[in-house]
Amino acid sequence: MIKLNLKYTKVAHKMQKYQSQIDNIHQVIIDRTGEGNEMLDWYDWANKITDTEINAINFKIKNLKTINKIDTLLVIGIGGSYLGAKAGIDFIKGKMRADDKIIFAGINLSGSYYKQIEEKLKNRNWAICVISKSGKTIEPAIAFRYFSDLLEKKVGKAKMKDLITVITDQKKGLLNDFVDKYNYQKFVIPDGIGGRFSAITAVGLFPMAFAGVDIIKILNGVRKANNDLKSNKLKDNIAYQYAVTRYILHKKNKLTSEIFITYSEDFLMLQEWLKQLFAESEGKKGKGLLPNSLTYTRDLHSLGQFIQEGKKTFFETNIWQESEESEIKILKNDLDLDNLNYLEGKTIDYVNKQALKGVVKAHVENGNIANIIISFKRNDELTLGYLWYFFFIAVTCSGYLLKINPFNQPGVEIYKNNLNKNLRIKK
Amino acid sequence: MIKLNLKYTKVAHKMQKYQSQIDNIHQVIIDRTGEGNEMLDWYDWANKITDTEINAINFKIKNLKTINKIDTLLVIGIGGSYLGAKAGIDFIKGKMRADDKIIFAGINLSGSYYKQIEEKLKNRNWAICVISKSGKTIEPAIAFRYFSDLLEKKVGKAKMKDLITVITDQKKGLLNDFVDKYNYQKFVIPDGIGGRFSAITAVGLFPMAFAGVDIIKILNGVRKANNDLKSNKLKDNIAYQYAVTRYILHKKNKLTSEIFITYSEDFLMLQEWLKQLFAESEGKKGKGLLPNSLTYTRDLHSLGQFIQEGKKTFFETNIWQESEESEIKILKNDLDLDNLNYLEGKTIDYVNKQALKGVVKAHVENGNIANIIISFKRNDELTLGYLWYFFFIAVTCSGYLLKINPFNQPGVEIYKNNLNKNLRIKK
Repeated sequence: MIKLNLKYTKVAHKMQKYQSQIDNIHQVIIDRTGEGNEMLDWYDWANKITDTEINAINFKIKNLKTINKIDTLLVIGIGGSYLGAKAGIDFIKGKMRADDKIIFAGINLSGSYYKQIEEKLKNRNWAICVISKSGKTIEPAIAFRYFSDLLEKKVGKAKMKDLITVITDQKKGLLNDFVDKYNYQKFVIPDGIGGRFSAITAVGLFPMAFAGVDIIKILNGVRKANNDLKSNKLKDNIAYQYAVTRYILHKKNKLTSEIFITYSEDFLMLQEWLKQLFAESEGKKGKGLLPNSLTYTRDLHSLGQFIQEGKKTFFETNIWQESEESEIKILKNDLDLDNLNYLEGKTIDYVNKQALKGVVKAHVENGNIANIIISFKRNDELTLGYLWYFFFIAVTCSGYLLKINPFNQPGVEIYKNNLNKNLRIKK
Repeated sequence: MIKLNLKYTKVAHKMQKYQSQIDNIHQVIIDRTGEGNEMLDWYDWANKITDTEINAINFKIKNLKTINKIDTLLVIGIGGSYLGAKAGIDFIKGKMRADDKIIFAGINLSGSYYKQIEEKLKNRNWAICVISKSGKTIEPAIAFRYFSDLLEKKVGKAKMKDLITVITDQKKGLLNDFVDKYNYQKFVIPDGIGGRFSAITAVGLFPMAFAGVDIIKILNGVRKANNDLKSNKLKDNIAYQYAVTRYILHKKNKLTSEIFITYSEDFLMLQEWLKQLFAESEGKKGKGLLPNSLTYTRDLHSLGQFIQEGKKTFFETNIWQESEESEIKILKNDLDLDNLNYLEGKTIDYVNKQALKGVVKAHVENGNIANIIISFKRNDELTLGYLWYFFFIAVTCSGYLLKINPFNQPGVEIYKNNLNKNLRIKK
């Protein structure tokens, strides 16, 4: 499904001496004996999620669209309750199309953003999907209060039951009080799967299904990756290869930043998802690679100069779609004032591919920058599920290589407590 | 207009000993004797641009909107011919509103992106503004060929003259052949102003004017900053203070990355603009800070863990709007199931402000991260022009502190040559 090319890192030959460490890490993952192992339920989740749940998701979506004529879904969630779904929808459906049909709220505390969403919803038939495990996270909590008010004013109290879907903890959390009181449809966030791994649960699946993504195929991709990435042998397991390579680049080559590179705006949110996955998993005890992201060729015309000739503290990880998907072609022009006739009949994606080759060559040969290339054929559901799972395995391995718990996030509480204090005191 | 708070960097007391270096740099800037000084025409550009040009821009826009009933402008440009206008429009008008009326093409080589633009343009009355100094940059060149074809099919050959605006070099460059042949309206990219400084020329002003931005006020902001930032004394010149502070954090504290932080999606593209400005100016001879950007509070729920407790190779530069612009308030709810009634009557922006305070405290006190805060009152034209100019002065000073030419970009040619070779050979 996906290919990993390590040739341009120049460290692939050093990988094998990590085999015994990988043996241990592999064992710790499958035995669930490592730090944070209670959060490993994503490991075989695709075999655990029931047909009943998948059918209920698809049934609810159908109900929203056909009976309630809903054209726009307002998804309220932040962090893992936002990035997976958004990344998935953009990846498969295209960013501009997605932006129009699925609007994400509760991702900030900007009044301007609220106003713009309101304007956008004005002539839409919209429904809400609110996603939060505790119900206490302030950004989605405020957004849920605000936008459910707005919806109620539009459709009346009686219709609310049909138009609100809650994705939350099995039993705990404030959102369950809403479910009990108003009888909203509910889906569960499993206990053993953290936010940044939740794209493959109802958290990611429900918004994706609304966008027309085939969620059964997503899970098929996850299952396939789970099957393919079962070996403890580095030579057979590309997720471990990726983890060890970036570990070597970090520890031996003293690089401090990993830049995720894509060549399509549709993959921009996948990069944001990757940045959360790696930063939140690794960034503990003064460790980890600071993630960054660039979208080429756009950013070659902005940060390209720095990448080529600036201070070298980073390596590049390219997420690259090999095949040409669209039929957009460069046509002949009789006057040829722009001198582009030599490209007649070529697709835009063909030119993009030549750009990637030119860039990797420029960065590796002239810039001496290590480049990892993760490539795949199609931006479809099977590939996405596979990619996500590949990164789950890689980041888990990476956390254990760094000797930290890859599944917790103790540091995010500090600002939350400060904010809470500020709000309570200044009341 | 803007305030610079260096208290949370803990290095402000070290600044004064750079005064003599700054004296020299200041002299070199105003005498135009430093490296790359031929590209310093932005320095007093707001006094050089003519009323005739500004009126011609506004007249053309009025003509497009009223006579030709144009509702959507397709702007074709990349790098500096894209980021300034996009940053400005989002900053003043709001990102979601802007995305709907001004579409940027030629920023990538993605067939999917072309297709999505085509879909979006289907029910619009649209016109083209193409921006390129040489006319040879492949991304905008291909996009211009593609979309002018599409427009001609829609409106016919005769109408094209009214619907295409070209912004290019005074005399040179392929786009002048189009102007000569088809009599398109043209505006000039001045010779002595590089792409990343071009937001205050027709390059930025034309698209912004279409979006309803008052471009005269932008230039007033630039003029005011030019006036305010004329001192060679560090204590009186916040642009130099900012430049020296980040230099100290880089050189003395050994930090390798500057993370630009904002608290609004509307400023996301301003961050991209900043990343180009600094990366392209500084990233030479193995020097410079690798720029990164985060949008809070969103990214506190993704990279927040890393920032708080990960490897400390960075500092944060907050770009912060102090005042509360919107009237979006948290209302009372009788049941208070979400426990938010304690915030009754508060605006969302008030909560955002408490978040900023909580975050800076958490990052500075608990995370030991240097924080620079650049703040302003309103997201209006005057402020934007001022901010841009502030950063122009800062980056110029910074380049000279690093002993490099802040105005060239020799490294971006390498990939372009490779791409060109790939395309020609594989033809």
